[in-house]
This record gives sequence, C-alpha cells and structure tokens, in this order.
Amino acid sequence: MRASVVGLFTVKETPAEAELVSHRLMLRAGLIRMVAAGIYTWLPLGLRVLRRVEQVVREEMERAGAVELLMPAIQPAELWQESGRWTKYGPELLRLHDRHERPFCFGPTHEEVITDLIRREVRSYRQLPLTFFQIQTKFRDEIRPRFGVMRAREFVMKDAYSFHDTEASLRSGYERMHAAYTRIFERLGLAARAVAADSGAIGGRISHEFHVLADAGEDRLALSDKSAYAANVELAETLPSTLPRATPQHALAEEGLPPGRKSQDPSGDHPASRVRIEILEGHGGEVWAVALRADHELNPIKAAKLFGPVSAMSEEKIHERLGCNPACLGPVGLSLSLVADHAAAELSDFTSGANRDGRYLSGINWGRDCPEPARHDLRLVTEGDPSPDGQGHLHLVRGIEVGHIFQLGTEYSERMHARFREETGGETCFWMGCYGIGVSRIVAAAVEQHHDEWGIVWPLPLAPFDYAIAPIGGNAPERILDVAQSLENRLEQAGRSVLLDDRGLRPGAMFADLDLTGIPHRLVVSERGLGRGIIEWRDRKTQRTEEIPLDTACEMLAQSVPRSF
Amino acid sequence: MRASVVGLFTVKETPAEAELVSHRLMLRAGLIRMVAAGIYTWLPLGLRVLRRVEQVVREEMERAGAVELLMPAIQPAELWQESGRWTKYGPELLRLHDRHERPFCFGPTHEEVITDLIRREVRSYRQLPLTFFQIQTKFRDEIRPRFGVMRAREFVMKDAYSFHDTEASLRSGYERMHAAYTRIFERLGLAARAVAADSGAIGGRISHEFHVLADAGEDRLALSDKSAYAANVELAETLPSTLPRATPQHALAEEGLPPGRKSQDPSGDHPASRVRIEILEGHGGEVWAVALRADHELNPIKAAKLFGPVSAMSEEKIHERLGCNPACLGPVGLSLSLVADHAAAELSDFTSGANRDGRYLSGINWGRDCPEPARHDLRLVTEGDPSPDGQGHLHLVRGIEVGHIFQLGTEYSERMHARFREETGGETCFWMGCYGIGVSRIVAAAVEQHHDEWGIVWPLPLAPFDYAIAPIGGNAPERILDVAQSLENRLEQAGRSVLLDDRGLRPGAMFADLDLTGIPHRLVVSERGLGRGIIEWRDRKTQRTEEIPLDTACEMLAQSVPRSF
Repeated sequence: MRASVVGLFTVKETPAEAELVSHRLMLRAGLIRMVAAGIYTWLPLGLRVLRRVEQVVREEMERAGAVELLMPAIQPAELWQESGRWTKYGPELLRLHDRHERPFCFGPTHEEVITDLIRREVRSYRQLPLTFFQIQTKFRDEIRPRFGVMRAREFVMKDAYSFHDTEASLRSGYERMHAAYTRIFERLGLAARAVAADSGAIGGRISHEFHVLADAGEDRLALSDKSAYAANVELAETLPSTLPRATPQHALAEEGLPPGRKSQDPSGDHPASRVRIEILEGHGGEVWAVALRADHELNPIKAAKLFGPVSAMSEEKIHERLGCNPACLGPVGLSLSLVADHAAAELSDFTSGANRDGRYLSGINWGRDCPEPARHDLRLVTEGDPSPDGQGHLHLVRGIEVGHIFQLGTEYSERMHARFREETGGETCFWMGCYGIGVSRIVAAAVEQHHDEWGIVWPLPLAPFDYAIAPIGGNAPERILDVAQSLENRLEQAGRSVLLDDRGLRPGAMFADLDLTGIPHRLVVSERGLGRGIIEWRDRKTQRTEEIPLDTACEMLAQSVPRSF
Repeated sequence: MRASVVGLFTVKETPAEAELVSHRLMLRAGLIRMVAAGIYTWLPLGLRVLRRVEQVVREEMERAGAVELLMPAIQPAELWQESGRWTKYGPELLRLHDRHERPFCFGPTHEEVITDLIRREVRSYRQLPLTFFQIQTKFRDEIRPRFGVMRAREFVMKDAYSFHDTEASLRSGYERMHAAYTRIFERLGLAARAVAADSGAIGGRISHEFHVLADAGEDRLALSDKSAYAANVELAETLPSTLPRATPQHALAEEGLPPGRKSQDPSGDHPASRVRIEILEGHGGEVWAVALRADHELNPIKAAKLFGPVSAMSEEKIHERLGCNPACLGPVGLSLSLVADHAAAELSDFTSGANRDGRYLSGINWGRDCPEPARHDLRLVTEGDPSPDGQGHLHLVRGIEVGHIFQLGTEYSERMHARFREETGGETCFWMGCYGIGVSRIVAAAVEQHHDEWGIVWPLPLAPFDYAIAPIGGNAPERILDVAQSLENRLEQAGRSVLLDDRGLRPGAMFADLDLTGIPHRLVVSERGLGRGIIEWRDRKTQRTEEIPLDTACEMLAQSVPRSF
C-alpha cells in the first residue's frame, strides 16, 4: 500500500496534552486523533493494528468454543432496571432519550441484553453450555478521560458471555477462557500476567484480571517470588503474624512535638513502629476508626467489604468531632471504637497521636493503655510482604488491565428470572460467566511495553505493516520507484503487508517517520544500492542492517520473517 | 461448526409483528432478534451473513483505492453546529449529553468528523486525492422503525469520503466508486440498479442511489426501455409535450354532481381529462395552488425545489380559506395564483371543480375561462411516460435503497473552512464526495429478493454456511455422527464453511429448519445411505437431489461449489 494513499499523518512535535509515552507515540505516529475528550478516530495505520488484535482475539475465542454475535450499542433502560444496575452503575453509564423520550443507554457492557436473549431462546439443559462473544464499540463516560485510548470513553471491547447448567460447567468454561486469554497475549507478543481480582461493578465471586506489564500501568500487582500466587494489590491478602506480640518494655509517655517535627512524624521513629488512625464514614452516617501501621496504606476495597460503602471523613469534620487534627489521632482515649489492621494490632511499645493537637504518646501497648482492637486485614500489601499462600514473598509490579474474566454465578439470571428446564424436570437459573478484553486498550498497552527513543517497536503480530519500503531518489527517482513497486507487489503476493513510502521525502525525514511508526522491517531501495544489485534491510528493533541481493530478496524475506498468524 | 454451539434459534411460528417477508424470515431463521423498536441483536447466523457483506464491501473499497479508518460513534455537537446540520438534521439525529452536560450526537453519518480531520491533517494538493471508508454502527432515530433491519434505528453502514483538489478529480473518484458499487452487488449475487437520485439531507448536486430490485421496495424507480436512463421517481423528469394544445371544442358549463358520484370524480370521465388542485403552504405561511391532471401525483421533491419547503394544506383550512372541499377546487375563479404541471396545462376542454361544494365545471380551457398558468414539471412520472432522455418509455419498478453516492462539491469544506494549498500557491476548499452502503439493510434486501415458500434461498456469496450436514440417526446414531463429523472436518479443511446439525431432531423438523436458514447445500448422512456408500446432496434453490459416493464426496463438493470469494 502506498503512503500517499494511506495518508500517513505523522507529527514531529511532541503533543503537549499527552502524559503517557503510548499516547504521545500513537498521536505522533498517526495512529489516532482526538475528536473530543476520550473520543478518538482510528487513522488507517492505527486501525490496522486494532484489526490485528481483533483477529487474534476472534480466532482464540472461536477456538475456545465461543460464537460471535453482535448486540446493539443502544440498550433500553428497562433491562438495566431489571438487573438493578440502572441506578447502581453511576454516571459512567451514558444515559440518553430517544425522540419519544424513552430512556436508553449506550452500552458499557452487555450482561442484561444477553441474559434477556438467553432467557427467551433457551429452554432446556440440552441446549447448554453456550458461549457468545462480540467485538464492539462501547462507551463509559469516564469523569476524567486521559492517556489517549488507554482510558478513553468510546473504546473497542471484546465481551463474551457463557451460560451453563451447573457451577461445575461454569468453572470449566471459565478455565477454557482463562487459557484462551493467556494464548491471546502470547500470540500478540505481549508480556502479560493473570492475577486474582476484585469483581467490582460487574459482580460475581471469582474473577481474574489480565495485565500487560508496564511501568506506566495504573494497577499494582502482587506476585509471589516462590509460587504462582498473583493478585491485584486491591485484592491481595496480608497474613497475620504467627509470632506472639512482643511483651511491653516501656511505660506510656505523653510528649510534645519537638521543634521542626510534623505531627505526622512526631518522634522520628521508623513509621513501622507507629500507628495512625483513619476515620471512615458510611453512607448512612456511621463512623469507624481504623488503626494502621504508619507505613501502610488502607485498602479501600477491603474496608468496603468489612464496612460496606465508605469514604474518608474530611479533616474539618474530624477536627469538629474529635477535637484534633487527623494526624494527632491515636488509640489511647479515642472516643470511637477501633478496628485495627493485623500489622498495627501486632505492635508493642508503639507511638501514636494523643488526640490533642501537637501532642503524641510513646510506649503505647494494646490491652494495657487502650482496649484490644478487633483485628482485620485492611491494608494494601507492600513489597516483600509474605505471600498469602505461604510460599515466598510478594513482589509488586505495575500492569495495564487489558482483560477481566468473571464467574458471575446466578447473580444476573436470578435478578432477571432467566431459567431453564433441568434434566430432572425442575426449573433453575443459568450459571453465567463473562469475559472482557479491552481491544483498543491493548494497542496502547503494547506501545507502552514496546517502544524506544525513536518511536514504536511493534511486536510482529501487531505491526500495521510487515515491511516499509523506502525508495531513495537520487538522479533516477522513476527507476527507483519502479523497483520499489515491483518489490512491494512481490511481497504482497507472498502474503506480506507492505507500506511503500512514495511521499518523496528526504531520506532523513523518511527514516525518522518510518522508525516512529514502528514497522518491523525497512527495505531501502537506493541508486547506489541498485548499482551494486542490493537493497538494504534493517530491523527496527535491533537496528541491525544487512545488504541483500535484489534478485533473491523476495524469497529470502518471505521466509525469514516469522509471523505467528 | 456445530448447531449446538451456534445455538440455532429458529422459530416455527410466523411472528405477528413482521409485515415484510424478509423481516419474518430473518426472525424465523434466527438471524436477528429485536431488543427495542428498530434495535436488533444479530444472532450468530445473521452476523455471518453480515460479515460476508462487509468483506465484499471492504475488498471492493480497497480495490477502488479507499483506505479504512474508524471514526467515533459519538460526535461533539460543535462540529454539527459548524456545518449547520445540528439544527437542520431534525429529530432523526439522536442527541445526548455527557456527564458534564456537553451536547453530543450518535453519528448517523460522518461528513463533519472527516472534514474536521482532513482540514487539520492535509495542507497541500500534493497529498490529494484521499479516500477513506469505515464500516460502522450508525443510529438514525426513525419516527416509525419497521420492517426489521430494513428500516432499523441502529444499523451497520459503510461510509466513504473522498477529498480532491479539483472538480475533475472528484468526478473521476465518483466514477470509480460508482463502478465499485456495481461490482459489489454483482459479487453479492444481487440484482441491483443504479439510478439518478435526489441528494436530500446530505447535500451536493449529483448523486446516484443503488437499489436492490424487489417488489417490497419502498422506492419506485423509473427505467427507460430503450436507453440507460434510470432515476428514482422522486427525481425523474417529465417532458412537456411537443404537440400544440388542442383547440377548444366545448363551452364552459357548470353542473351539479349526479346522484352517487363523488366530488373527486364528478363526471365519470377518464381522470386524464380532469384537473385537480392541490394547495401547498410554505413554512413562512405562503400559499400556492398547483394544478395536476387527476391521474397524476404531485412529486413533493419537485415542489420543494420550486417553492422551498412546503406541506399540503389541511382540508379544514382549505374549507375555511377557500369555501369548499379540496375536491371541488378548480382553476376557474380560484382566488389564488396557479402553477400547473405540464400535463395539466396541456389539456383542453377539461373538467374541474367549480370552487363550490357539489358543483363542477366541464369544457374548461386555459386562457379562455381562466388565466394561462405558469408551467412546471411537478408530478411523479408514471408507467409508460416518455423517457426524459428522449429514448423509449419509462418502466416503473420497485427497489430497496442499499447505497447512495454523492458529489458533495465544496458544500461542507466551505462551511467548515477546510482548505488546502493549491499548486499555484493559493488556498482553496476541498472538493468532496461521499459514498454510503447500508450493510445491514443489504441482508434484508437479499432475503426479499431470494426466498421461497420454505424460507431463505441465499445467493452463495451471502450464505452463512456453504453446507449443512444432516445426520439421520436410525439405529446407530454414533456411527452416523462420526461420519458426519469427518465430512465436516474435511470440508472445513478444504475452506468450506459447514453447519453440522447435531441437535438430534427428527428428519422432518431438521430439514424444515435447514430449508428455513437457506444454506445452499444440504448433505444427508443416513444409515440407509451409508449402507450403500452414499450421501444425499440437495441443492436448496432447485431442490434437486443427487446421491454421491461418500469416499469421493469431499473432492467432488470442493470442486463443484463455485464461490465468488
């Protein structure tokens, strides 16, 4: 294909609005253009990459026994009211009205529509299991869309749904999808990892996320260095210590802040020997105090599981209600009952606030100076924590969530009265699984994982073109272009995709552009080379260059570029 | 692929809500299911047909030099305000607000988005021409969605846009698209016809529609029996007579309606010798009277071209204003100035209303009894009218509009200030073309054109599967299924798509289902047949049956089923 036909819209300048390298490179290489916040056009080069992702996803879904269908983007509110999510989903659900003022939404996911289909069409256990998938444009009205297509509002997703007659069948369908996801990321040439995850707004009990590993990832993952344990830090458990708490050595002492010390760090001790208090409020006005080791962070998902939906109490409200700054709160004399994270509850002779501004206590001991608190797992794991499966220690890495699979169980089928006839003659609810992949996000994640200072370095299966041909004009541009064109034709006949840069740029500008777009192989056809019967072949990744004879170039290239699909 | 995996959702009963045969058959064969009015899920079988259409369209677009991209479904209002269509497009444009109350629409078409892209990215005539296309879900909020996916609100469309430096370049791009469209319908196995058309809400001066010919079509097309002339009746011109008007023979006479006669047909003459009057109102309250021959219909598009946007005045209002029923209006003594269609103006000694209820006039002659009217082409053509190109006569047929191409000219680029640098150094507006195909509507149109009393009869290129294999159980269902399965595998390896009906239905029910789905070839594997070493091969269309030896079946079938792609 000719660059003049594709309309290669590359950009030299680094776009000011782009924080992430993938966002910058996708704009600069001419893969995407913003139309509105979080809403993008996929330019031809970007769409070619997107389609390659789609194709691998489609093939692996089909291999796993899923069948493609296409549900509508616009969904009637009634179905969401039935499932209870019309009110629960929040403002990310793009709601709208048609000309008759009937309420609809632009589907961010399709559990309701598919459950409605299946309850109408499937009567008997004999028709099960069934697994359907679609690859479709979705919309989630993110409050702060950013990072290009990484966190866009309109995006392309593969969503699959399975229906089973028993929980065992659901579990085996889920395992098949887990395996298909693993193969998808392998085939795409991406380093990815499955981790146990919280199931969030989609629901169900068991779920796994798939992450492309990259420093820019918004998620933190906890991986054991000795076992297969892997979980999103949101979910990763901490283990209570198996050792008894140390015997108190010190007396309780109240002290003032030394000059220059902040109340957050009153004594200059290691924060691991300090306790801080967080105050949480429930939606019904309930208040909880949580004790954490000062070097630990509260895990909001664990807190929500224990208390229900909560948010942090504001500093002003704490002051008004408890009479001091949040940083000066402590367990001794606190007028609220206290829940402690295991690690905080395991301390002896610790430091904490005195519940008065500017004052703190040292030598505090649970049970002696304040009541023994209820103990729970409430914190985020940290690097080096023991692995919850007892094998090894946790290593934290960053990941970009590109897939999420769920065992929904009977959550939707119960709410929507989706039932089938069992073998025994009775009626029961379908067991359901659902399985998502962020198709457009994978493109951005791939760029995060595969780039260098000159631009994108596509893994072969994702490249928009296998080859870029760069004709270098000299004194006989017509002849050079003829050779380039015949090379293009022969490679395309051999099943390779080729971009022929016929824009007539100078070599430096052309090479910089082609490096930016990340096409794995560049073939330079130049006057000097042709004089010697050779073309230059350069590997984008290694930047290794080789001269190859023009007359055997095609056969050689057709053989030497392995393609995984 | 197994029927048990696909989840073949066929239905015996004829759905009550479906008027058109394509709607009925698409529901019954399990191609689509309604989710809300005009909003459908494409079931696996239907999606396979849709994808075949998409693939042919994609290949022909690429062959015509167009490059695929993907613009967003959700478009910001600002762009539509710039083009002037935010207010002009009417309630078919699905408008919505995001969580920040910013206005957007769900794109029914993408002229604004692509023009915005090109004005940002293309600077010079050197980068032109460029043609882009996308295959995408669109939304048009039809007031009365009906006929299944034929007139749906959410639908799949291929839209292409071309940008040129000169009108000549636009014209040649337009011709290339015209030829590509012709090839698309040929390849899909559909009898289609291109006709000159009105460009409506999209704009521009020259446009052609592509219609699949079918009795259920909503459009009427006028085709010459002697030349290539073809136009939508909306657009088809009528020619004024070349003969002079006949000399008046009769005196003007006023008469009362004979008993039993309606005022619409006072004298029992042939309506071709009567004139009736239609009263039209403009949006600013202007009023026009139009004289038509009583056997002719007003062409609203011709009227709008002459008068601007108009609608028919209500019966009540006519009575109030002119003192009689609309059927009693006539040119003699009418208190409004009159415009006549050529055919009405060519009459002598004609009959018409007397502008009083129950009274009519005969022997009316223009110029003698009432003023000579202004003459215009205002009516719809009728069967047998002379062809406007002077060659032959018009034949009227019905068509389903499945494509529409437009020479937009500089309409959008002027309004949106989309300019490029010319070779001469100046700046000028892009010349634009746009080219749509109703991908999902093609599926319904194909069913209208290809069905029989038992169900759909797909043209080969559109069939969801090439072969259906029907195993007939008998006493050894396992062995039969084994043979069927090995046949399936071998045909699939030969590149054929196969549906193996493993649902265990009785032969009658299975055959009826397979006939309904329209799969072109049915292979019956039965105990009796296998005893004789044969399978039965049946052609869905001709219903011809042949016995073929099992051991050579695959090679034979792989050769004998021509596939156009």
